[in-house]
Amino acid sequence: MGIVVQHVARADRDIIDKLSAAGVATVHEAQGRTGMLASYMRPIFSGAQIAGSALTISSPPGDNWMLHVAIEQLRQGDILVLAPTSPCDNGYFGDLLATSAMARGCQALIIDAGVRDIRDLTAMGFPVWSKAVSAQGTVKETLGSVNVPIVCAGAHIEAGDVIVADDDGVCVVKRGDAEIVLAAAEKRLANEEMKRKRLASGELGLDIYNMRQALDTKGLRYV
Amino acid sequence: MGIVVQHVARADRDIIDKLSAAGVATVHEAQGRTGMLASYMRPIFSGAQIAGSALTISSPPGDNWMLHVAIEQLRQGDILVLAPTSPCDNGYFGDLLATSAMARGCQALIIDAGVRDIRDLTAMGFPVWSKAVSAQGTVKETLGSVNVPIVCAGAHIEAGDVIVADDDGVCVVKRGDAEIVLAAAEKRLANEEMKRKRLASGELGLDIYNMRQALDTKGLRYV
Amino acid sequence: MGIVVQHVARADRDIIDKLSAAGVATVHEAQGRTGMLASYMRPIFSGAQIAGSALTISSPPGDNWMLHVAIEQLRQGDILVLAPTSPCDNGYFGDLLATSAMARGCQALIIDAGVRDIRDLTAMGFPVWSKAVSAQGTVKETLGSVNVPIVCAGAHIEAGDVIVADDDGVCVVKRGDAEIVLAAAEKRLANEEMKRKRLASGELGLDIYNMRQALDTKGLRYV
Amino acid sequence: MGIVVQHVARADRDIIDKLSAAGVATVHEAQGRTGMLASYMRPIFSGAQIAGSALTISSPPGDNWMLHVAIEQLRQGDILVLAPTSPCDNGYFGDLLATSAMARGCQALIIDAGVRDIRDLTAMGFPVWSKAVSAQGTVKETLGSVNVPIVCAGAHIEAGDVIVADDDGVCVVKRGDAEIVLAAAEKRLANEEMKRKRLASGELGLDIYNMRQALDTKGLRYV
Amino acid sequence: MGIVVQHVARADRDIIDKLSAAGVATVHEAQGRTGMLASYMRPIFSGAQIAGSALTISSPPGDNWMLHVAIEQLRQGDILVLAPTSPCDNGYFGDLLATSAMARGCQALIIDAGVRDIRDLTAMGFPVWSKAVSAQGTVKETLGSVNVPIVCAGAHIEAGDVIVADDDGVCVVKRGDAEIVLAAAEKRLANEEMKRKRLASGELGLDIYNMRQALDTKGLRYV
Amino acid sequence: MGIVVQHVARADRDIIDKLSAAGVATVHEAQGRTGMLASYMRPIFSGAQIAGSALTISSPPGDNWMLHVAIEQLRQGDILVLAPTSPCDNGYFGDLLATSAMARGCQALIIDAGVRDIRDLTAMGFPVWSKAVSAQGTVKETLGSVNVPIVCAGAHIEAGDVIVADDDGVCVVKRGDAEIVLAAAEKRLANEEMKRKRLASGELGLDIYNMRQALDTKGLRYV
Repeated sequence: MGIVVQHVARADRDIIDKLSAAGVATVHEAQGRTGMLASYMRPIFSGAQIAGSALTISSPPGDNWMLHVAIEQLRQGDILVLAPTSPCDNGYFGDLLATSAMARGCQALIIDAGVRDIRDLTAMGFPVWSKAVSAQGTVKETLGSVNVPIVCAGAHIEAGDVIVADDDGVCVVKRGDAEIVLAAAEKRLANEEMKRKRLASGELGLDIYNMRQALDTKGLRYV
Repeated sequence: MGIVVQHVARADRDIIDKLSAAGVATVHEAQGRTGMLASYMRPIFSGAQIAGSALTISSPPGDNWMLHVAIEQLRQGDILVLAPTSPCDNGYFGDLLATSAMARGCQALIIDAGVRDIRDLTAMGFPVWSKAVSAQGTVKETLGSVNVPIVCAGAHIEAGDVIVADDDGVCVVKRGDAEIVLAAAEKRLANEEMKRKRLASGELGLDIYNMRQALDTKGLRYV
Repeated sequence: MGIVVQHVARADRDIIDKLSAAGVATVHEAQGRTGMLASYMRPIFSGAQIAGSALTISSPPGDNWMLHVAIEQLRQGDILVLAPTSPCDNGYFGDLLATSAMARGCQALIIDAGVRDIRDLTAMGFPVWSKAVSAQGTVKETLGSVNVPIVCAGAHIEAGDVIVADDDGVCVVKRGDAEIVLAAAEKRLANEEMKRKRLASGELGLDIYNMRQALDTKGLRYV
Repeated sequence: MGIVVQHVARADRDIIDKLSAAGVATVHEAQGRTGMLASYMRPIFSGAQIAGSALTISSPPGDNWMLHVAIEQLRQGDILVLAPTSPCDNGYFGDLLATSAMARGCQALIIDAGVRDIRDLTAMGFPVWSKAVSAQGTVKETLGSVNVPIVCAGAHIEAGDVIVADDDGVCVVKRGDAEIVLAAAEKRLANEEMKRKRLASGELGLDIYNMRQALDTKGLRYV
Repeated sequence: MGIVVQHVARADRDIIDKLSAAGVATVHEAQGRTGMLASYMRPIFSGAQIAGSALTISSPPGDNWMLHVAIEQLRQGDILVLAPTSPCDNGYFGDLLATSAMARGCQALIIDAGVRDIRDLTAMGFPVWSKAVSAQGTVKETLGSVNVPIVCAGAHIEAGDVIVADDDGVCVVKRGDAEIVLAAAEKRLANEEMKRKRLASGELGLDIYNMRQALDTKGLRYV
Repeated sequence: MGIVVQHVARADRDIIDKLSAAGVATVHEAQGRTGMLASYMRPIFSGAQIAGSALTISSPPGDNWMLHVAIEQLRQGDILVLAPTSPCDNGYFGDLLATSAMARGCQALIIDAGVRDIRDLTAMGFPVWSKAVSAQGTVKETLGSVNVPIVCAGAHIEAGDVIVADDDGVCVVKRGDAEIVLAAAEKRLANEEMKRKRLASGELGLDIYNMRQALDTKGLRYV
């Protein structure tokens, strides 16, 4: 309760950028179908595709004080990731905090709670993935912590982990795995390109992936 | 059961228009963080920002008869606000009712249930905030009431109260408080403008709001 | 478990196209307010309005193997309709499967589970109505069935039934009823056009539909 | 924000006791099928059937400070009714607060949030109807209000209104209506007794309530 | 809309009784893991284990008129199964209807909506599996249908299908499959008894079911 | 994917037993209001109060194969803790698995999914806290992992962490913190006993905790 961890190791920006380009679905597959946040985390506008280092925030329900504390800890390209200590859909974050966060290099917000001023945030081009949109305000009375491990929308996230987010949702890659996951993701992308061409020509997945025998063995019957 | 209140006092149109310009988040803060409807109330299209006097409707589940009765009671700029007497997501309202409501001066619909024909409503520019989109139809068999107090999406609303709605959701301002709330909202807007500039320049909320000492007193530790 | 029905009767393409033009709300009313799938089935992009013959898929939770089997059974204009055997929001379907399905004549996907790669699907113009958007991947281990009767989002659907979908949701018309429902829908559309004009001129539904006496008989009081 | 109303009119204890004896379903019917709180409000143990005057509490999410303030305002037989200002399922109330409330004459708690120590509360015979059971604790940092109007689980409740609760849920009766509602409830009970005997003998509701003609007029067909 | 099917074939009482004895989990496995209603269908009291022929009811939301019509169609041992035409948690059924239904031979109610008077129903020993407990009353204004196919809590049910219900939930067996499913269930029970003894003695499922090799083949690593 | 960690450090049995005696609410407070699993985790019968070392299981949705693998890893007094890799309410566990687990020393199951055969489990006295009760069966096709870190019902749990569970829900204590948390819990219990007596005598929390001045400073007004 009430701790701010100031020194956080981050992954290499170049790796982060390439994970961003690979996108959520590919990155998630590349690390063995793990790391997805819950599917209720939706973007406030579509089309954003980003990646960055997580700056984690654990906040009491209905209290956004720690966001101010967290903003001071931002480094260029970071992503704020907030989890309330119990379920809450209040609007913790709006255009003033976004203005401040952007001025400090913040790239996006991931929040397992609510966000507001979404018209302004959209106009500013500041992407947010949230559980709710709500103008319901918050107080600044109780401490939380910054850069401690959190569980956000069902995923365990540590400060400095890489967050990848796009229209498909949000995925976390452990900082130490980022390079290996990237390699697997790029291999996967190359492979998919080839499959896409064959499938587009009308060839069937049943044949490309040699599924017919396995289906038969399991007992699939055509009637 | 089965009452239509015909004479309803309304707030001044000028005040209503200024509340609309202030927007939901500001108005809600200006009245002490009260008045928000539940965050599941979402607009059928984004970008609308409105305010108007509530014409309230209490309807049985799956029965939209009272909407026809309510439309006769509309005054220019009114907002229809419907709450079913038990949870229901049927589509109570579509393009025909919207045509009729618009012809009678209606500005928008707030409905703690479903709406349909949303492509048509969007083309007509008729904004709706609803719990659901559903084509599931309704019957016209059971009476409800018009312009009685209702609870809509968790908020108590009386006929003639001011409804403010935008992409952040829906807020209700008691008719008698509209003028005071507007004054507080406008003061707030002026104040925010100043803060926005300071935050955009990179100054921190921690300093602008003098939070460092309070955080320290509560025991926040930097490690 | 593990059956693929290969011969499925389909409704006449001309009837299907006219049901598409009528749209979900009208078709649903025309068949006596039945056939709607649950309102949580939402399109991944707005504006699509389609109809086609259902190619049904019953799949285990988190297993998309049967989609590959189903794609081989597609006929031009068909719609894939997938129901998991227990609630699941995994992303069963993405851009590779969409590429394959489109190459085989598929028009759309209706899925009581999750979908991913929605930016790609949107770019490809492939419409999907789903319960969730999720990048969470699936396995290919357990058999399901293709073209058996399923319950999808609360509606009973048989292979070859007609699916109509637009921004209002998804409706199923039994194959054998398609012609009769179309006739009722077209009659309804003609009738609505006339009402729309009268309502737009400010005439009230209370008068057009002769409701005043019925309301009075039920005891509605104006105060 | 931060108001405690100290003088609250209460209904007559004799009327309250008779409403308790009538039970929730009957009282709710007797006042025209109104007043029910949402069906997610469930008792922590079954068998309790109570009624009392509401002592209302509006609390921030995750903050139970106002419960201490409210307990001082209790009169013998009162019922604490708490609504958070935004959705929250924290455990606001446990055995220590129950000990204190009971010592001050409190009869029960109705809370649109969480409760804890339910084994102790059950042993103490202190009934609670809540949205959740949760040990997740709360803070004491932010003011709320006591004996102001609230919306609790979808129902508008004022201090001094009569709360009736049993295994079927929770119902509110406006203080000023208590006597009239009681008269209607008792009439209803007498009437039901007679019907119960006829139904138990195998006579049909179709005949007792003369429904056959109305069903026929509406078009019911036996096939 | 508005049809009562009067002649319904039912399964043999002896088969039904044996399915009841087998219980829900076994019956559901015996028919290939199909037939379960959604897991939100919970009993109002624990310990009941029943089976009977379904008497199906399709009702509008908030309208219980058809229950009176259905009761006349009951045969000894039947189970009333009600699905509203759109989601609704109103209390459609209470002690008076239970008195009537029991007098006519009804064994239980399965309802994808609400039930009330649960203290009385429990005292009467009348079991109900429902989505909600709610005292919120209903009207008698709109027709539904009796003994038509319905989708109840996600399962397709036809009049005369066998309903099996216990503390694990509710399962439907198609009437025509009842005998075959029973045979499979009894075989399964015998088989389970043997396994139970081996497992109770500390033998592992890994060995009893010969799983070690399959796990190894799939790549399970012990570290 | 597909790892079984065989050597897991466990906390001292004596400490675990004392944490069990302290109960969930006290333990959770003693570690700074952290560690609670989501409030939807409910016991299948009331009255159980337990603590033990977590044996963690990560399973695909609808696949319970890893439970067989996990049972071999049990030590006396362990608690099985299962999290599916995506939301699922299938019944992963029933009386046969419980027989096997008990024979191997297992004390309870915590499962963020469904459980079945609850009448048998209750008769056997085997406590389960689950998200759902469901007879819907599972397959044995896909690997998961045992004794890896998981997120279960929103809480991060590692193998060997201490699980405390009772009617208030489920709480996790990190293995390394168990001794310190126990000390804090016991201090808290002693302190509560004293407060309970004062509160039972009618003394107010406002006075015992010296809240009046703080409330006044924050601006609470009595009217």
